[in-house]
Amino acid sequence: GICYVGSETLWLCQRTFTSFGVLFLQMGWGDLGAFGEPSKETPNLDQMAAEGMLFLDFYTANPLCSPSRAALLTGRLPVRNGFYTTNAHARNAYTPQDIVGGIQDSELLLPELLKKAGYINKIIGKWHLGHRPQFHPLKHGFDEWFGSPNCHFGPYDNRELPNIPVYRDWEMIGRYYEDFKIDLKTGEANLTQLYLQEALDFISKQQASQQPFFLYWAIDATHAPVYASKQFLGTSQRGLYGDAVREIDDSIGKILRHLQQLGISENTFVFFTSDNGAALISAPKQGGSNGPFLCGKQTTFEGGMREPAIAWWPGHIPAGGVSHQLGNVMDLFTTSLSLAGLQPPSDRQIDGIDLLPVMLQGKLIDRPIFYYRGNEMMAVRVGLYKAHYWTWSNSWEEYGKGTDFCPGQSVSGVTTHTQEEHTYLPLLFHLGRDPGEKFPLSFASEEYQRAMEWITGVVQQHKDTLVPGEPQLNVCDKALMNWSPPGCEKLGKCLKAPESDPKKCSWPH
Amino acid sequence: GICYVGSETLWLCQRTFTSFGVLFLQMGWGDLGAFGEPSKETPNLDQMAAEGMLFLDFYTANPLCSPSRAALLTGRLPVRNGFYTTNAHARNAYTPQDIVGGIQDSELLLPELLKKAGYINKIIGKWHLGHRPQFHPLKHGFDEWFGSPNCHFGPYDNRELPNIPVYRDWEMIGRYYEDFKIDLKTGEANLTQLYLQEALDFISKQQASQQPFFLYWAIDATHAPVYASKQFLGTSQRGLYGDAVREIDDSIGKILRHLQQLGISENTFVFFTSDNGAALISAPKQGGSNGPFLCGKQTTFEGGMREPAIAWWPGHIPAGGVSHQLGNVMDLFTTSLSLAGLQPPSDRQIDGIDLLPVMLQGKLIDRPIFYYRGNEMMAVRVGLYKAHYWTWSNSWEEYGKGTDFCPGQSVSGVTTHTQEEHTYLPLLFHLGRDPGEKFPLSFASEEYQRAMEWITGVVQQHKDTLVPGEPQLNVCDKALMNWSPPGCEKLGKCLKAPESDPKKCSWPH
Repeated sequence: GICYVGSETLWLCQRTFTSFGVLFLQMGWGDLGAFGEPSKETPNLDQMAAEGMLFLDFYTANPLCSPSRAALLTGRLPVRNGFYTTNAHARNAYTPQDIVGGIQDSELLLPELLKKAGYINKIIGKWHLGHRPQFHPLKHGFDEWFGSPNCHFGPYDNRELPNIPVYRDWEMIGRYYEDFKIDLKTGEANLTQLYLQEALDFISKQQASQQPFFLYWAIDATHAPVYASKQFLGTSQRGLYGDAVREIDDSIGKILRHLQQLGISENTFVFFTSDNGAALISAPKQGGSNGPFLCGKQTTFEGGMREPAIAWWPGHIPAGGVSHQLGNVMDLFTTSLSLAGLQPPSDRQIDGIDLLPVMLQGKLIDRPIFYYRGNEMMAVRVGLYKAHYWTWSNSWEEYGKGTDFCPGQSVSGVTTHTQEEHTYLPLLFHLGRDPGEKFPLSFASEEYQRAMEWITGVVQQHKDTLVPGEPQLNVCDKALMNWSPPGCEKLGKCLKAPESDPKKCSWPH
Repeated sequence: GICYVGSETLWLCQRTFTSFGVLFLQMGWGDLGAFGEPSKETPNLDQMAAEGMLFLDFYTANPLCSPSRAALLTGRLPVRNGFYTTNAHARNAYTPQDIVGGIQDSELLLPELLKKAGYINKIIGKWHLGHRPQFHPLKHGFDEWFGSPNCHFGPYDNRELPNIPVYRDWEMIGRYYEDFKIDLKTGEANLTQLYLQEALDFISKQQASQQPFFLYWAIDATHAPVYASKQFLGTSQRGLYGDAVREIDDSIGKILRHLQQLGISENTFVFFTSDNGAALISAPKQGGSNGPFLCGKQTTFEGGMREPAIAWWPGHIPAGGVSHQLGNVMDLFTTSLSLAGLQPPSDRQIDGIDLLPVMLQGKLIDRPIFYYRGNEMMAVRVGLYKAHYWTWSNSWEEYGKGTDFCPGQSVSGVTTHTQEEHTYLPLLFHLGRDPGEKFPLSFASEEYQRAMEWITGVVQQHKDTLVPGEPQLNVCDKALMNWSPPGCEKLGKCLKAPESDPKKCSWPH
């Protein structure tokens, strides 16, 4: 039932391929047993890797959540799709409650495109591409939604700041901490179980009607405040964070087994990855591990953007495969279109590549990885070389107050607390010999010269053709918070918004 | 053919169990694909783990080579068997060429004991328990030897310092750099291939005569100066160190397949581990990875003593097993005796435990891990807790000269450059939540109090019953170097020793 067109690209006949899913969450490269986490508490993910393909050089598009998620769904770098800020140089921005911007109608999202091929699309969990009505996921291609527009942190007082709403499809059905409990003391919350059940039910329903589907399972139990269900609390050697990982691992095992039991595993492409590196600021209780890599979330070091990644598609992707393909969450856009027999849009720059030749034919495709922080390209990876054009962890001021993105790690001239420009003489690392970015190559070496010649060309081409999108994460306004989401009146949960007072959002790092 | 006696201990009938081997080398916890090395270039070791049991909490007895090797072969801590120094407080000592001491006749080595059960014992590679005639491995239970008494570093000038000899059994057959080439420029040396061939031949011979054997494969290609054979040079993403790892991985694959082809794999217990953590001072070109752990060789942080470890015994040890048993190289002494149907000596303290119940019945045995540096117990692990009674990386003086045991890592108050005493209020880490030893528990916490109560009892008992051995690594004398090893006259390779001038060895860290 698979038809090939051309030699490089694998096309799947639309009706023989029925469905796929993406799993997405804040976990670090080093959080899985298969990636060397010493407690080795992820038997289901390890099994998924053993039955599928492990990507060891896979990246997210940004060291922060919202921009990465926008990139995943558009196949485009945040600097193109607008998920960045120009309020200050090289600042990480996301979509807090008071953000004015969100995903633009001009962007084409994966579910919008898949719809044309007859797919039913569902998002379960955190959307994070804007919470105002025009940004609603059902206005951007999704058919169903169970989850929230923003992060589950809080609780808020519902006076100065409203609690985050939880939506079912078009309307809110409650709020975190009120109707969807998260016990901040014990870390108990049954949300992952709700998300799991939603996933299982959705899959069952689509299977019953032989309906191709796209499921975006965007759970967030490993984001502070970390939570787990009662039956997982206290079960991990790693503490609460590990409990959350174990519950996610267990859930993924249940989803994969469900696909197998329904007999659709060979028609379902499943990909597991994460939207940013482990948040070391939250470690050890609420943050994970980036294994041997430098620093974590918020930074453009490997720990901030290199992600665990597993592709699973029994009968197609060879079991136990390992790939060193430089991959990116944006590739899931292009790859998914390819699986559905669709072409990516040709009227705009798409950064994602089709990974099917990598997964099915073992090919390696030459492509760079760009490490952006807000409006600045901080670094680029080409082959095994990574050149830093700018280095920054966070400011001395923040660091002095105890905010540390690189706890226990300090590489002189690299994990800098001032924004250091290296554009004329980039810091160069060989990630094969030095995955931890500790030993910059000598500027005088022949290897440096040779590698930088290669890299300079790649960067030049990127910069020459880059047309930045209109930045969406510049303006914040308290009046636009989740005061009265659709459906609030039925629940008696509408809150009174303050007067509009738009101002520049403050992005400290 | 396996008989059980009692419920805890597994005894193997002597004649049905024929043979086992131990593989031993300087590699870090994070150097194997199965332990999360991002290049994943150890397919044979990963396969060994998939067919056997992965030990994730396995330790060496010392952060340095000679003491660890003495501990492996005696089943006793270096502070008991004499492989330590009292020249200064908490100093790592080993057996350089000018060392006067070595393994004492009063110590009972594993091969001496196995001999009584009819085993033929061979050591291939680095002995490192003293190079003077009375310390010769064939005087301590081994029947055959191919390798060297000391580390292969050099080259020496053969005037001030002789090159290290390579022995076959009782006599030297050449010297490193002269007869056994190591090209320091290219890193080329065929030594691992020689060691591999020795192993294959030895195994074949014992199998042919149905002879139980003990093979101690103590290769050293991953010790600086790192080397690899021509066919492996340049094949690793990781550079020369990776080339060496790949050659070792390939060799281990060949040894395991050889056992299978000879039909004796089910009679052969094979264990893979390392004598100390990766030497980060030699990174990135000549040093490996300790994964997510703190610092490396020479230190009593996890990176210095936690080791990759795989047990393999098809048909007995369940395939794909994973154990969190706190293990130690000293356990290989006791476990091997158990496999041979022998009891460990009862006239002395043995620190090793029998791991057979762990490997064959999935038991977990309560036992502490002691982290010694020379004459000082620096730290102890009990369960998931590790208490540091002393912290030290190296001196400011050494550090100022560029010697760094923790490159890129710095944990305030932990990776100290002065010897810091914490005996009254030990620094406590929970290695499950914080494997990287970055977040000491609060002294005021209930958890600290509870854990320290437990640990204090364990330490008290250890200290109360400890009878330190006579330190062997205090005195050095140039006159005792490898000037004229046995056999040198046949080769015309005898050198003239200087006058005896014994003095205290200098141990800077």
